[in-house]
Amino acid sequence: MFEKVTIIGLGLIGSSLARAIRASGIATIIVAADNNKDVCAIVKKLGIADEVTSDIRRSVSGSDLVIVAVPVGACANVAEQIGPSLKAGAVITDVGSVKQGVIDALKPHLPSTVHLVPGHPIAGTEHSGPEAGFAELFHDRWCILTPLAETDIRAVEKVTKLWEACGSKIEFMDPQHHDLVLGITSHLPHLIAYTIVGTANQLEDDMKSEVIKFSASGFRDFTRIAASDPVMWRDVFLHNKTAVLEILQRFTEDLTALQKAIRRGDGKYLHDTFSSTRDIRRQIIDQGQADYRAPGGLRQEGTPPVEVPHKASGHSG
Amino acid sequence: MFEKVTIIGLGLIGSSLARAIRASGIATIIVAADNNKDVCAIVKKLGIADEVTSDIRRSVSGSDLVIVAVPVGACANVAEQIGPSLKAGAVITDVGSVKQGVIDALKPHLPSTVHLVPGHPIAGTEHSGPEAGFAELFHDRWCILTPLAETDIRAVEKVTKLWEACGSKIEFMDPQHHDLVLGITSHLPHLIAYTIVGTANQLEDDMKSEVIKFSASGFRDFTRIAASDPVMWRDVFLHNKTAVLEILQRFTEDLTALQKAIRRGDGKYLHDTFSSTRDIRRQIIDQGQADYRAPGGLRQEGTPPVEVPHKASGHSG
Repeated sequence: MFEKVTIIGLGLIGSSLARAIRASGIATIIVAADNNKDVCAIVKKLGIADEVTSDIRRSVSGSDLVIVAVPVGACANVAEQIGPSLKAGAVITDVGSVKQGVIDALKPHLPSTVHLVPGHPIAGTEHSGPEAGFAELFHDRWCILTPLAETDIRAVEKVTKLWEACGSKIEFMDPQHHDLVLGITSHLPHLIAYTIVGTANQLEDDMKSEVIKFSASGFRDFTRIAASDPVMWRDVFLHNKTAVLEILQRFTEDLTALQKAIRRGDGKYLHDTFSSTRDIRRQIIDQGQADYRAPGGLRQEGTPPVEVPHKASGHSG
Repeated sequence: MFEKVTIIGLGLIGSSLARAIRASGIATIIVAADNNKDVCAIVKKLGIADEVTSDIRRSVSGSDLVIVAVPVGACANVAEQIGPSLKAGAVITDVGSVKQGVIDALKPHLPSTVHLVPGHPIAGTEHSGPEAGFAELFHDRWCILTPLAETDIRAVEKVTKLWEACGSKIEFMDPQHHDLVLGITSHLPHLIAYTIVGTANQLEDDMKSEVIKFSASGFRDFTRIAASDPVMWRDVFLHNKTAVLEILQRFTEDLTALQKAIRRGDGKYLHDTFSSTRDIRRQIIDQGQADYRAPGGLRQEGTPPVEVPHKASGHSG
């Protein structure tokens, strides 16, 4: 399928891709490039790539597929570096959580002889770095591709095959629509989780230790999300500003309405709101999106709650 | 330990208590009382109590321990009903998520011959009703007791033994301090989760179906919390108004600051905030609070992430 694949950026996603691509056998040579030499040393030790280099510019020479797996904010710089070294006809893809911003960052630096197919695997954990990666990360997960109107269909097919080989399901979307949908499903939840954990973090020490002690009552779930990579998330918010601010506005209005209901003692409004949200959970369960599997195939969460109501998730008042 | 224990309210917590008390052998007779006859029928079928009745008033006669396990808003009415039938020297406890509000609701209706020891087990799932209960729900979980200054120490000891027999660890707290700590660890997270899922619920249908499809990217975690019992949570917010509104104020200020940083493109502020929150997660993991176990003892979540970094939790941008 591919002679030589270069992965630039060996964090959780990049290093998982190296493992998944090798396991799938769709590439003859895998080159891992990262400008952080400590990361390169770890990747070498892990033995998940055929070549490891901190010279990003050179890493792409002769590659028929280049995967940019750096934080969104570093994409422009990477494109600028690799642009002149790219092979004619090469396919370039990325894994960024924002799509229009990444297209704007990459495109000006790429020669017209290469094909850009932006992508976003909906997969990850709260852990980061090359050691956190694993080959099964993308199994049964969605990967959203946002090809441009002018993109060569054969390049799109190649990237589709790449992700299918990693076990993913493919969805196509307009880049701006992607940014709005992910703004709701991912960026806002992360922003809120960071906020609530940040608020707790500012408490006096003795109160903070009690919050940690009794975190099983709801708070804990937010801390997992709020432990995600700070650089990645800084870049997401800087590059999906418009969508995030718009969704945040809606959220704030809804929160203000609930706040007002609490202040007024409006039990009916509270009950109606809290009842309406159960339905979405049910639909997520119905669509098999509520569970995830660990590498060994062990089901770890939330499925199926109707038949197995005995799961202690620790949520309580 | 107890001759006759009456549990009033056979939801998730009440029915789990019935099972746990029976498994522990600390009570000779377990009476289950619920004013909902459908619930009584299910409890009878489950066979988790020795007597099942919808006559709450009578259910407590002769009991040396009465556990009120109804939503916080129903406590006053229950106390009014059972007050005249309580045996002299009986111990009354509850499981409410708010403590000062419950004390205010119960106390005026209880004769001076009985001993009130308010309690709150930090345990639960997003499922509700008698079928959702299981005996191991309280294993290794905290139970917070908030006895009043005038409470007989022997009554406090009895309630302590009850929860220890159910596998819980005991913590003592002032009722109002409890309400503030739980306001942060539990009430605010639930309010935020209800809000964010509610905001998504108001989207147009096609957008909503995409949110469900790609919910693994963060949103999903909120839907589990937002599937919690609406009546229970309505009552929590109505009875812990002051603490919740104060904490909500702090949260809103912090969210506004992040919003402003996004609008201004202040990457340093975002990065600093997102970095500070990782530490709390680490402390939760260090204290062994990050994992929970299913009844069979299977570890289901988050432990230990350093040695097992391969867990796919599905969080990503």
